[in-house]
Amino acid sequence: MNSEKQPDPASEPISKSRLRLWLSLLKTSSMIEDEIRRRLRSELDWTLPRFDVMSTLSRRPEGLKMSEISKMLRVSNGNITGIVDRLTHEGLVLRIASPSDRRANLVRLTPKGEQVFAEHATTHEAWIDEILSGLNANDIEGMMSRLDHLAKFLESQD
Amino acid sequence: MNSEKQPDPASEPISKSRLRLWLSLLKTSSMIEDEIRRRLRSELDWTLPRFDVMSTLSRRPEGLKMSEISKMLRVSNGNITGIVDRLTHEGLVLRIASPSDRRANLVRLTPKGEQVFAEHATTHEAWIDEILSGLNANDIEGMMSRLDHLAKFLESQD
Repeated sequence: MNSEKQPDPASEPISKSRLRLWLSLLKTSSMIEDEIRRRLRSELDWTLPRFDVMSTLSRRPEGLKMSEISKMLRVSNGNITGIVDRLTHEGLVLRIASPSDRRANLVRLTPKGEQVFAEHATTHEAWIDEILSGLNANDIEGMMSRLDHLAKFLESQD
Repeated sequence: MNSEKQPDPASEPISKSRLRLWLSLLKTSSMIEDEIRRRLRSELDWTLPRFDVMSTLSRRPEGLKMSEISKMLRVSNGNITGIVDRLTHEGLVLRIASPSDRRANLVRLTPKGEQVFAEHATTHEAWIDEILSGLNANDIEGMMSRLDHLAKFLESQD
């Protein structure tokens, strides 16, 4: 019935199967990220970089340097500064002097920022639950163990 | 032995497991991409955006508009123009008039560009084969079917 040429996984070299898997991983991750970006915009009037910055800060209540946020999110310092400036203006984050380095500022969430992020995080978790609803506990543990295996290999490359 | 608090997958709500899987997918994809970026630079003196542009063009021998490359790679038009300008200067791509729209230019690989990309693609496939070497044919087919399932769900959201 299907006249499209499909690769036959049983006969292709395993290097081709691994390449297909990598391209599929990349594509699916991008699609999920795009769907999250779309829902943040349409349902919460929010952006993914703003969500990511607040998520990073929420895990580090002691505060982070601008350069640390930039490194953790792989986003340029200039872009992070712009986002933090706007979040500061909206009362969601604040800058404090670093206890260990008086020349450096740390950024952290304000109580209002914590509250806003907690609401966003709950909504985000529900979206992921819906988007991944086709995967049951067995599927998830099977994928997690293989992804952990890959991550360990990659960590050994450093 | 391990005093770190580990989530117990058997007792956590499935929404938390799905969120962990999503974060793991994102992290592993980024790590693989970083490793490819590092190897392109150190072993081929090449960049990932240059590799991605040539890879996209190699699949479309009839040529692509600058705006199409930009959309397919989710990279700004300005960045794509800069990359295409440098590849043109090096004789790896060329601009031709579009047969259907005389005001638009199409970009495609030159024969030299096809040859250079073919060598890069072979090296890239070998790297992926090595990075994913911990996954056998069964692992790959298990992950592929679950990723396809996710992609189908996401396509149905449009």
